[in-house]
Amino acid sequence: MSPATHFPPLVIEQVTPILDGGRYPVKRTVGSRVDVGANIFKDGHDLITARILYRPPGETEWRFAPLHHNYDVDRWFGAFGVERLGRYQYTVEAWPNHFGTYRSELKKRLTAGQDVRAELEVGALLVERHAAQKRPEASHRLLEIAKQLRDQKLALDRRLELVFADDLAAAVYGPLDPEEATRSPLLELLVDRPEAAFAAWYELFPRSQGTVPGVHGTFEDTIQRLPEIAALGFDVIYLPPIHPIGVTHRKGPNNSTTCKPGDVGSPWAIGSREGGHTAVHPELGTLEDFDALVQSAQELGLEIALDFALQCSPDHPWVTEHPDWFFVRPDGSIRYAENPPKKYEDIYPLNFWCADRVGLWNACRDVLLFWIGHGVKTFRVDNPHTKPFAFWEWVIREVGNLHPDVIFLSESFTRPNRMRSLAKLGFNQSYTYFTWKNTASELKEYFRELTQTEMVEYYRPNCFANTPDILHEYLQQGGRPAFRIRLVLAATLAPVYGIYSGFELCERTPVKEGSEEYLDSEKYEIKVRSWNAPGNIKQDIGRLNRIRAENPALQTLPNLRFLASDYEGLLAYHRYAPGNELVVVVNLDPHSMHESMIEMPLEALGIGPEEAYDMADLLTGARYTWRGRRNYVRLDPVERVAHVFRVSRRLS
Amino acid sequence: MSPATHFPPLVIEQVTPILDGGRYPVKRTVGSRVDVGANIFKDGHDLITARILYRPPGETEWRFAPLHHNYDVDRWFGAFGVERLGRYQYTVEAWPNHFGTYRSELKKRLTAGQDVRAELEVGALLVERHAAQKRPEASHRLLEIAKQLRDQKLALDRRLELVFADDLAAAVYGPLDPEEATRSPLLELLVDRPEAAFAAWYELFPRSQGTVPGVHGTFEDTIQRLPEIAALGFDVIYLPPIHPIGVTHRKGPNNSTTCKPGDVGSPWAIGSREGGHTAVHPELGTLEDFDALVQSAQELGLEIALDFALQCSPDHPWVTEHPDWFFVRPDGSIRYAENPPKKYEDIYPLNFWCADRVGLWNACRDVLLFWIGHGVKTFRVDNPHTKPFAFWEWVIREVGNLHPDVIFLSESFTRPNRMRSLAKLGFNQSYTYFTWKNTASELKEYFRELTQTEMVEYYRPNCFANTPDILHEYLQQGGRPAFRIRLVLAATLAPVYGIYSGFELCERTPVKEGSEEYLDSEKYEIKVRSWNAPGNIKQDIGRLNRIRAENPALQTLPNLRFLASDYEGLLAYHRYAPGNELVVVVNLDPHSMHESMIEMPLEALGIGPEEAYDMADLLTGARYTWRGRRNYVRLDPVERVAHVFRVSRRLS
Repeated sequence: MSPATHFPPLVIEQVTPILDGGRYPVKRTVGSRVDVGANIFKDGHDLITARILYRPPGETEWRFAPLHHNYDVDRWFGAFGVERLGRYQYTVEAWPNHFGTYRSELKKRLTAGQDVRAELEVGALLVERHAAQKRPEASHRLLEIAKQLRDQKLALDRRLELVFADDLAAAVYGPLDPEEATRSPLLELLVDRPEAAFAAWYELFPRSQGTVPGVHGTFEDTIQRLPEIAALGFDVIYLPPIHPIGVTHRKGPNNSTTCKPGDVGSPWAIGSREGGHTAVHPELGTLEDFDALVQSAQELGLEIALDFALQCSPDHPWVTEHPDWFFVRPDGSIRYAENPPKKYEDIYPLNFWCADRVGLWNACRDVLLFWIGHGVKTFRVDNPHTKPFAFWEWVIREVGNLHPDVIFLSESFTRPNRMRSLAKLGFNQSYTYFTWKNTASELKEYFRELTQTEMVEYYRPNCFANTPDILHEYLQQGGRPAFRIRLVLAATLAPVYGIYSGFELCERTPVKEGSEEYLDSEKYEIKVRSWNAPGNIKQDIGRLNRIRAENPALQTLPNLRFLASDYEGLLAYHRYAPGNELVVVVNLDPHSMHESMIEMPLEALGIGPEEAYDMADLLTGARYTWRGRRNYVRLDPVERVAHVFRVSRRLS
Repeated sequence: MSPATHFPPLVIEQVTPILDGGRYPVKRTVGSRVDVGANIFKDGHDLITARILYRPPGETEWRFAPLHHNYDVDRWFGAFGVERLGRYQYTVEAWPNHFGTYRSELKKRLTAGQDVRAELEVGALLVERHAAQKRPEASHRLLEIAKQLRDQKLALDRRLELVFADDLAAAVYGPLDPEEATRSPLLELLVDRPEAAFAAWYELFPRSQGTVPGVHGTFEDTIQRLPEIAALGFDVIYLPPIHPIGVTHRKGPNNSTTCKPGDVGSPWAIGSREGGHTAVHPELGTLEDFDALVQSAQELGLEIALDFALQCSPDHPWVTEHPDWFFVRPDGSIRYAENPPKKYEDIYPLNFWCADRVGLWNACRDVLLFWIGHGVKTFRVDNPHTKPFAFWEWVIREVGNLHPDVIFLSESFTRPNRMRSLAKLGFNQSYTYFTWKNTASELKEYFRELTQTEMVEYYRPNCFANTPDILHEYLQQGGRPAFRIRLVLAATLAPVYGIYSGFELCERTPVKEGSEEYLDSEKYEIKVRSWNAPGNIKQDIGRLNRIRAENPALQTLPNLRFLASDYEGLLAYHRYAPGNELVVVVNLDPHSMHESMIEMPLEALGIGPEEAYDMADLLTGARYTWRGRRNYVRLDPVERVAHVFRVSRRLS
């Protein structure tokens, strides 16, 4: 390499936040602060000036935020706020602070009583060099100062006063030569709306929202249910696919491969002669009815999330219009989905690497744009790990460029590295393994990973307590207390959580022993429920959603710390935000009463070892006085499964 | 972004080893193995083929090593060996294994008793597509096989046999389409000769190698000392600067600013009318004498390391030839070194960002090339952190491209982030804070950092027990036992260690109380020593260097684990290599006897809880039988300061 190459005079290393060396963006939400750190140094003892450069999406001019050196850790820190949706860029810039170094050395010389008159000439030259970098007016002012520094008729004290004036330091701010400014590589930051990081979800099948058994529910029926769901405090209503359902190889009840007349089929077998991904199933209503649903939801502060399931029934219009978008067998037929020896003849997978890849990818994107045009801003993506990761990275960026308020939720239950990779490449939220974490040690290990590792920079867990595919054995066997326990855990461990309808009624009959599938699953048939049936836990839901809305401690992810309890099955944890300290204790055993001493985090709470403090149970309104580190808790699931305490110091 | 852009069908993430996202090379030595890991996945269930691509310096063709999937951690692992000096490149490549997926699914279909005849056509087509990617001969063979797969006259079993034959799998190896091959970014790996990672250093001032007090020692005198140093088992002899010493503002004894006639000055004040960085100080001899020294050393298995100190005395030829390479004051004079209010008038710093930067940087490189031409392959770089980091990164790469066997040792005692950065940018070895780590907790914390963190990938500590600048209080006050203790620690904790001459004589008088400088330091005057003076610890040195040479466990860095001892001041640690298990116990207190129970790492040693085993003290030849986890050690510094045990199981 020629030594004439441009070499940076400083080293900028270990910039944070960063993900995989800058390959993927970290995530934040509008209104949040981005804390930046960097190791910055140059040879010798010269002072350095360093700053953050950042720009909101679409802007070309940089904005600036200062970086300050923390001597103890020899690292620079600063922050900037993000106020706009979309992809910010940021980097770190630094240059030698020649004038600062000069001033600092001059001060040392003065302190040591040295003759500094010759040094004023050095200062004058430095000011002149800075003047050459400035616009005419500023340059002129600097040249005037340089002249005064040299002016032997001016008293030495007056000239030194000029050197040490703050306004001179400000006027010479900047590198002496553009080549002296060193920048770290550009990094990207994905800024989402706050709902990406804090929301309560409710999943329902519109066709089951009717009131007459056997009669297909509609969007209009769904509108009727909105006030109840809004009153329970939910933010998002997620609908499984609402598109026409295929008839070829349609599945019957309980996933039967034979189908009787009148069977409604699975909404995930998308497409029929009535249309594909941009059509609505006629039995649900019209597109106008759907628009009305979106509108009604908005009026109640709810938003409608749609399922984005990129697969087709054999009756999907694409099958005839674009047979080349599918896998074609040697005999010219289209290949149905298989996981040999299992066959899924009601589904045709798309060939994302087909010759007309561009056409297919654009069509998939256009499906999203279509529904966005109908007011949908959140998509729950079905099985994204069965489509190319590169496709998701592309389509999320494409859609985000036009509609940065859109949220994509990754419904992927694949292995951890792949789930993380989907989140890194752009999914704004991700499903989790929460349903399978039921013991204290499982929950602690998993939530420490979600909240205390690098994952907080990019992985926003959406903890569903159940889904149409997952009725965990814990719920099947634990009855109503188990549902109450899992609800409290989901709502207080994760800022984003959800339930699938029926959870509030503690529905828990599996299709067979050992299965996590529901008996007579809504995936294949219509269900009509009595939403106020005895034993429902809607009161718990409403209370927890209100507690979540009122307590900032439950609205962010990394502020979770588990507390020691003598009996581990009483899971205790501390969630905190400025002025908002919560301690949650949950009895994980739905069958038996347990009691335990709990270790309170007194230092974190700022409470003295002998001090009395108030514990207000936000679930019941009861108030207790606790004192010291260890305190007694008893929870009988017959009566209550958890305390959600707000801790407060007493005014003395 | 247009969807027509090339998108990779796979994701390759988290490739290791990697340093700062690929910004800096990791380091290895010739003959070592590079273990590579990567997260690799694609959508769906298709199989993947993945491999490492690597190429030695100067080669353009890739070499390959396989990667294998470890299902438990969902990560791919492989390795390649490095046999050549210089900068290797490596990356990871993967593609969908279509034929493997096809075979695996076919096997499942067969197991399930499905009719697979139509599948043979699928296989034939796949083989034909692979054939299109191959050279004529291989292509022809594949087309023949495809024909047979289709041949209805051939028995089904025979055709299936062809599908499952290993040679067909080998013949279709490779992507179906070059675009299907996905590569991670290129990474760099710096391969050094083994001495970069394992060596014993001895520092001496040639002018002090004479035998007559007051008479300037020479290279010839130094040659006379070589056999003794070689017999002690050292590998590298490091000489402070050997260049002409300036006379202007020459320093007198004990760093005095006044100098009397006959005072020899500091070798770091480089340059006089006799020459600069490419000349030798006339009183040491001629360049031919130096060549003879290098030659004599080589014959004894020693190598000579030179100091590379980029600074000039006012009398250096560069000052008159290239005054523009220095900092010029407004009055036209050249600026001497200052750290206001302190002045170092005997030294002119170089201005590495001067207008003729290219000329200066090339001249500095040429100094190195000059000495390399005289057989010097190791440079101890003086205060590299006071010269631009970019200069070092450039010059180390430039020199390494021509002479990849050259080793640069960073003599930097600046703050940790900067010391690490110098190592990352290319220094092959680095000084450490070892001299200031004297308690058990300090040693444990520091050596855990050096051996158990990412630093092992790039930072090779050279643990000097003393230097001409550092005579630690611990040595001053601890007397001979302290020197023996520090010697054992340096020699058995670090694969690369060194002593500065005088250490073997336990020289320990500081210039004044509270100072780490020596009284009558060799930096400013000639010293003549009696190398066999009573109380010397040369026997310890010789034994330890022999133990190091004979025990692979002492030759690598990351294989260090500290052991629990009831009395922490008896520092115990385990060093291991295949078939070579050492346990070292050192009494850190030079003043008092201490005893303690030591916890042996029985699991790591493969020794049963009740089993007896042999402990051979390699320092004394004594043998002990130990049993079980806890064993008793007593060390009286009057007698001995340490055990260096080789542990061996008994043959039963």
